[in-house]
Amino acid sequence: MAEEKKEKLTIVMFSGDLDKALAGFILATTAASMGMEVSMFFTFWGLNIIKKNEGSIPSKGLMRKMLNFINRGGSKRLKLSKFNMLGLGTGMMKRLMKEQNMPSVDEFIKTALEMGIKLVPCSNTCGIMGVPPEAFRPGVVSMAGAAFFLGEARKSKVTLFI
Amino acid sequence: MAEEKKEKLTIVMFSGDLDKALAGFILATTAASMGMEVSMFFTFWGLNIIKKNEGSIPSKGLMRKMLNFINRGGSKRLKLSKFNMLGLGTGMMKRLMKEQNMPSVDEFIKTALEMGIKLVPCSNTCGIMGVPPEAFRPGVVSMAGAAFFLGEARKSKVTLFI
Amino acid sequence: MAEEKKEKLTIVMFSGDLDKALAGFILATTAASMGMEVSMFFTFWGLNIIKKNEGSIPSKGLMRKMLNFINRGGSKRLKLSKFNMLGLGTGMMKRLMKEQNMPSVDEFIKTALEMGIKLVPCSNTCGIMGVPPEAFRPGVVSMAGAAFFLGEARKSKVTLFI
Repeated sequence: MAEEKKEKLTIVMFSGDLDKALAGFILATTAASMGMEVSMFFTFWGLNIIKKNEGSIPSKGLMRKMLNFINRGGSKRLKLSKFNMLGLGTGMMKRLMKEQNMPSVDEFIKTALEMGIKLVPCSNTCGIMGVPPEAFRPGVVSMAGAAFFLGEARKSKVTLFI
Repeated sequence: MAEEKKEKLTIVMFSGDLDKALAGFILATTAASMGMEVSMFFTFWGLNIIKKNEGSIPSKGLMRKMLNFINRGGSKRLKLSKFNMLGLGTGMMKRLMKEQNMPSVDEFIKTALEMGIKLVPCSNTCGIMGVPPEAFRPGVVSMAGAAFFLGEARKSKVTLFI
Repeated sequence: MAEEKKEKLTIVMFSGDLDKALAGFILATTAASMGMEVSMFFTFWGLNIIKKNEGSIPSKGLMRKMLNFINRGGSKRLKLSKFNMLGLGTGMMKRLMKEQNMPSVDEFIKTALEMGIKLVPCSNTCGIMGVPPEAFRPGVVSMAGAAFFLGEARKSKVTLFI
């Protein structure tokens, strides 16, 4: 099948919650394995999912430094939207996932990149929140704005806002 | 109009909040009454919406037993995402709905089933959370995974992630 | 391009959070500037976004009066879904937006109306919550129900539930 004939799935990852990140990657990788072309567009708290797990985030100005400290991000720091219970619920969920041989978010990101899924940080929110390109893990596509997302969505069979 | 020509609406019910459950069922039943074919795919906390209201949920292992105790679910136990106020806000919302002759979630589920709306629990999350098929109310279609949902979504005119 | 040939974007604004309101308006106004026809359908807490900022909301019955007091709404009263920190985080986000010349939600609404974006309050939830038409800012289209939204969504290239 020619590249331009592939059906497309586009997902906005707005949330930085562990459960929503999992939902997004389960759908994205399954779609890719079904032969769909997949783009994931990360914005607001969703940017945390694709930030590097190591080091601190360099940013300018006191407010952005503070924001990037309390909102550090990284796939290993994501928490459940419910029952986090100071990390207890989140830890329990991670163990239950492992028992079922469900990949972690970190593993899902690697698989997604290997499958050719495009991971795109939103330039608009990166600008506001002071998140520089080097905050993201290798493999992440360069930033793009709302117009890029809408262009992808217009060509998509399915578009989800998670 | 032949069955296969009907326009389709597919909804992912990720959230187990009362307000989002209502939004989902208002859209689903309205779409069905407009002649659309509707599938609702329940995942993560959304599974709570279609669990039986009675009895406890049998599951294996201490962690899953705990999770199914604190995350019991059932259409009558759903809470508002905002202003729950220890149940006061949720109770108030239910009374306001009754005053306006708006069905409860429980009634909406019965109507949805009567209208032929497919209610499908996500097998992936049921596996992780240890939710067995017998936890769901009668009429709920057998579990299916992300590939099933994507197959439905690809054939749909409108797909929503709630 | 003839009006009926324009590609359509339809957005359900369910949430009344500042961050989700911004995401919605960034997408809506960008789509309109790309020549798309845009409808935004406000329901549940999302109604708060398009309420007037001034005065109180007249409503009948003690419960609805209470609800409209604690859930006053107005574009200037929206809070972040995360890190609100008693208003500190929300204030910080507003300052960061201003520094980047990002419009406020209030300015976004005015721009959206000027661009011909339809802002439609959901009649079903207005009925339950006791929100009268005069609670909304001028320019907001008259209320419509779920069937109206579905009609728009069926004609849309992209539909999002935010």
